[in-house]
Amino acid sequence: MADIAVMGYGIVGAGVVEVVERNADIIKKNAGEVINVKYVLDLKDFPDDPVQEKIIHDVEILLADDDVELVVETMGGVEPAFTFVKRALESGKHVCTSNKNLVAAKGAELLKIAKEKGVYFLFEAAVGGGIPIIRSLNNALTADRIESITGILNGTCNYILTKMERDGKDFEVALKKAQEHGFAERDPENDIKGYDSCRKIAILASIVSGRFVSYEKILTEGIDSVCHEDIEYAKKLGMKIKLLAKCTYNDGKISAITAPFLIDNKHPLYGIDGVINAVSVHGNAVEDVAFTGAGAGRFPTASAVVSDIVDAIKHKGKDEYPVLWSEEEMIPEDAGEVMYKYLVRIRENENNDDSAFEAVRTISFEEYEDEFAIITDEMTQQEFNERAKKVDMISCYRII
Amino acid sequence: MADIAVMGYGIVGAGVVEVVERNADIIKKNAGEVINVKYVLDLKDFPDDPVQEKIIHDVEILLADDDVELVVETMGGVEPAFTFVKRALESGKHVCTSNKNLVAAKGAELLKIAKEKGVYFLFEAAVGGGIPIIRSLNNALTADRIESITGILNGTCNYILTKMERDGKDFEVALKKAQEHGFAERDPENDIKGYDSCRKIAILASIVSGRFVSYEKILTEGIDSVCHEDIEYAKKLGMKIKLLAKCTYNDGKISAITAPFLIDNKHPLYGIDGVINAVSVHGNAVEDVAFTGAGAGRFPTASAVVSDIVDAIKHKGKDEYPVLWSEEEMIPEDAGEVMYKYLVRIRENENNDDSAFEAVRTISFEEYEDEFAIITDEMTQQEFNERAKKVDMISCYRII
Repeated sequence: MADIAVMGYGIVGAGVVEVVERNADIIKKNAGEVINVKYVLDLKDFPDDPVQEKIIHDVEILLADDDVELVVETMGGVEPAFTFVKRALESGKHVCTSNKNLVAAKGAELLKIAKEKGVYFLFEAAVGGGIPIIRSLNNALTADRIESITGILNGTCNYILTKMERDGKDFEVALKKAQEHGFAERDPENDIKGYDSCRKIAILASIVSGRFVSYEKILTEGIDSVCHEDIEYAKKLGMKIKLLAKCTYNDGKISAITAPFLIDNKHPLYGIDGVINAVSVHGNAVEDVAFTGAGAGRFPTASAVVSDIVDAIKHKGKDEYPVLWSEEEMIPEDAGEVMYKYLVRIRENENNDDSAFEAVRTISFEEYEDEFAIITDEMTQQEFNERAKKVDMISCYRII
Repeated sequence: MADIAVMGYGIVGAGVVEVVERNADIIKKNAGEVINVKYVLDLKDFPDDPVQEKIIHDVEILLADDDVELVVETMGGVEPAFTFVKRALESGKHVCTSNKNLVAAKGAELLKIAKEKGVYFLFEAAVGGGIPIIRSLNNALTADRIESITGILNGTCNYILTKMERDGKDFEVALKKAQEHGFAERDPENDIKGYDSCRKIAILASIVSGRFVSYEKILTEGIDSVCHEDIEYAKKLGMKIKLLAKCTYNDGKISAITAPFLIDNKHPLYGIDGVINAVSVHGNAVEDVAFTGAGAGRFPTASAVVSDIVDAIKHKGKDEYPVLWSEEEMIPEDAGEVMYKYLVRIRENENNDDSAFEAVRTISFEEYEDEFAIITDEMTQQEFNERAKKVDMISCYRII
């Protein structure tokens, strides 16, 4: 029997406790022994929940208990999670976390400590919820040179964009719907500004390159400026606007971006609508493989955390403690140097320079009579910005 | 350095040799040592190919060579592949294969021998080509009770159905197109009759249940009777006809079927078009996770085989030799007992019994004036067959 402790009895933490109990037989078969939740650390008490007898308020209790082999961290945020996780690893305990903020900020340091101590630091649930993307990159797609990863990694944004597209709603209305359904936080900034997606692609970029890619160095644009009219243009082109988090890795160089993109119906992520997450991986042998599933939610996220528990307990002492990435920082290439085609909406204005862009296609709507849109040739962002100064631009989107 | 041998230098075998060479650095990093192809067994010679110096025609050479730690089997068919693989395992060599016929027919026996000998018998490429579905079931979705698996596992059929749907082509025309593009064999029976998909779902059902599920016991219907008009009805309903291979596992009972189904746009596989394969897994915690990618082709399939090589070499001697399923047979439930709704096309005929079905919806086309279609309530196949006798039925499809 392996005793474990869960730090943080919120949505995901409670899900972990429940899945460990509900699927005990399967977990025992896969892990090789029974998993027993000995402690649950939380600031609060839960008098009406059977978990109450396991509740502790002092992290020192679980850190000092040598029976606790593994700690689950589902508190969120960088502190005090970082301090607790670090101390748990230093105490020779495996750690499984769903905390993308922690992993994006402190992953390299924690992976190094884990390796030194001969324990596992695992975080499948930190990217894509229940989707087994991290394990697939580490253990399945091992024959490939991974050249790019493109993800829809934020269910809130994808829900809002889908709602806008299907119901013709404005951003604010769609956001409100998302909040009503519990798909968006009351303070939605972290999601809609792209910060959440950016942290997740930083983690995947670090895995692919083997070096720390800081989310602070990744160009990040949110969806809060996407408007109904933009989506109508996308539709007219047979395209959709999606918040993509993307990294490419070629010749030892990483490039990464989080931004709303226009994608057409041949793109592997075109059909990913609603709160669903998906990650498309391109390898030089496997070509495109996509992984789709619930990117959040109590049980899907708990499923990923518990699969990490199984992995750690099954392989304990087997000396398979990878440093997935080193602390040495890999600075992403300047995102402005990457060439894209753009969709540009332009207001009719006598000062517009007609030769600003060599447009490859012009689109106009009868309903929007004082504007038109063009699709440009491929160009860098610098070049785009220069050219865009010459017209009365309403909005613009990269196309892939 | 690990010496390996490849048996069968066809499309996939040649892909394996090329991927091992092209991605040598990555493979070395992931496997922990250099992989060296020492022998390639084939009946033919390849005088213009650098592989020629490794070509052998006698399997005894590689079986007798103790340096060969691992054998790749990419010959196809049950014999002589079975005899060669069995002898390789008995000689203490790991085996990685892409051969679904071999695994579906002889998997249990070969897994048992492998475990006894302390070697691996791996077959990621046998289902879904490059899609890491088997590794995900075994190593990633380990916290879940897997309740069902639904796959589009045959790219030939999916290409034909997509072609029929998009271009309004008849089956024969779409099949010819598939053959022209190399997406269908000259003798396409194995694909279009559903035999290929059936073997693949038998493998997945065996993994899920832990017992041998024989493909011979799985209800299998092909797509060769799907006609243009059927697809028009599906379209009118906002649905598509897809050849699905599906198994469910509940209360220790397996149910499995391979057949064309009607699926609507909420189904996770609705958007999977063309030669692409996809597998949707439903677990009791993770909910629905889908894996999408190239189900065939030289490099995607080779990618899966080489990831098996990496896995075997990385874990050799680590005592992780699962018997994925036992030789004890698990007989699937009677597929006729599973309840489905049906779409039924009925020819106008004065002898039709109007009360044959309690139709929940009737559909008609102006163009098809001498017929109509209904969607029935859920019923077993036995009940459906009884009722269908009372009308002049043109065609019928299960709906999920």
